[in-house]
Amino acid sequence: MRNIRLLIEYEGTNYQGWQVQPKGSTIQGTIEEKLALLTGEAIHLVGSGRTDGGVHAFGQVAHFRTKSKMDVRTFQRALNSLLPPDIAIRKVKEVEEGFHARKQSKSKVYEYRILNRELRSVFYHGYAWHIPRSLDLTEMEKAAEYLLGEHDFSAFRSVGTPTRTPVRRVIRVEWIEGRDGLIRFEIEANGFLKQMVRAIVGTLVEVGKGKMNSEEFRSVLLSRDRAKAGPTAPARGLFLKKVKY
Amino acid sequence: MRNIRLLIEYEGTNYQGWQVQPKGSTIQGTIEEKLALLTGEAIHLVGSGRTDGGVHAFGQVAHFRTKSKMDVRTFQRALNSLLPPDIAIRKVKEVEEGFHARKQSKSKVYEYRILNRELRSVFYHGYAWHIPRSLDLTEMEKAAEYLLGEHDFSAFRSVGTPTRTPVRRVIRVEWIEGRDGLIRFEIEANGFLKQMVRAIVGTLVEVGKGKMNSEEFRSVLLSRDRAKAGPTAPARGLFLKKVKY
Repeated sequence: MRNIRLLIEYEGTNYQGWQVQPKGSTIQGTIEEKLALLTGEAIHLVGSGRTDGGVHAFGQVAHFRTKSKMDVRTFQRALNSLLPPDIAIRKVKEVEEGFHARKQSKSKVYEYRILNRELRSVFYHGYAWHIPRSLDLTEMEKAAEYLLGEHDFSAFRSVGTPTRTPVRRVIRVEWIEGRDGLIRFEIEANGFLKQMVRAIVGTLVEVGKGKMNSEEFRSVLLSRDRAKAGPTAPARGLFLKKVKY
Repeated sequence: MRNIRLLIEYEGTNYQGWQVQPKGSTIQGTIEEKLALLTGEAIHLVGSGRTDGGVHAFGQVAHFRTKSKMDVRTFQRALNSLLPPDIAIRKVKEVEEGFHARKQSKSKVYEYRILNRELRSVFYHGYAWHIPRSLDLTEMEKAAEYLLGEHDFSAFRSVGTPTRTPVRRVIRVEWIEGRDGLIRFEIEANGFLKQMVRAIVGTLVEVGKGKMNSEEFRSVLLSRDRAKAGPTAPARGLFLKKVKY
């Protein structure tokens, strides 16, 4: 058996998320179906982790095992010709037998985009959270710094998916101001709880609006109480940017 | 009667184009419907010109007459709250009675986007023409220069819409190389024939692929023969950027 690693870009608008669901189309399911066509085998694709419905990816990583002898270049071309326009395979690589896309990921980088200006934009609609009211970026930066390091992130998780521990280590946080009111939040951690980035961004936006200051944001984090945090930011502003191994 | 001028941004993917059609939804029709709701009048919206189905706009201009006394600020907010996410009103201005969006336009600027790299992109899919094969931009620039000035553009028009004359004056052409293989073509003229930009870009791409050189491109222009030109570039790469008065 060969072990093949994929680097995947997707526009999540029309999907129920990464993971195969009883109903509705998913990124994983769509790629598995095309892989089955190419290899004649029932392929199980293992992603680095799930992404919610509507979330996008610049660089999701996944692996699968196959008996197929097709070279990786041909695999990539054939897959890209079969896949719909909103899923693209950026790289295909043969990896050692032991490689596991989820278990071996060291950290992940997510990006969240906010369009912070009065006027909405037809082009950013599917790719950013539109917030007309001016945000206090300095206070949001201060608040975000408190996320760094190892914490119990129970205040910023959604119920539903059991995990061994709610403790994660945040390695980097950054707010980047772009043109035309676009601001981007980047966060890297050794792992993320369910809807963790969206809950963090939703709460940081409360800080930006002046409804909470950076010290209060810190108290929310330390409380481990989801009810104290802000709303969950919309999925369409979120991008899985990179998975590191 | 007041005369109101709109500056409009739209994502054309889900529309049959600007102009009201017997079947299917259009940008003009969608805005007229919301204006009727706001004013209680049957509103006729006059655009600076048509755009084809799937073509986008950063800055389409249109005007309409109304008895409504609503101030322009309220008009803009109310319209933007009623319109779907793929149409946005960037500006609303009261103008002199004689202003006419089509008849008084002095020039228009169109932008065409090409994604020139092997790998397709899920994010550019609806906004650029993907050409995997490397294009000779220097030769395309040379060819485009021949468009400058006053010419009979019959070689670069689609049949169907009668016009007084096929002569137009091209004021500016520019190829701009961006990041990640994105190249943009900007063209400004005192007016455009039906599908003129798309026919020009389709032919310039033939030049970029080496199927035609810049001198042959010039001959195509001078021939006034549509059959000699290249294919019509896809609508999704085209943006109406600006209308000047």
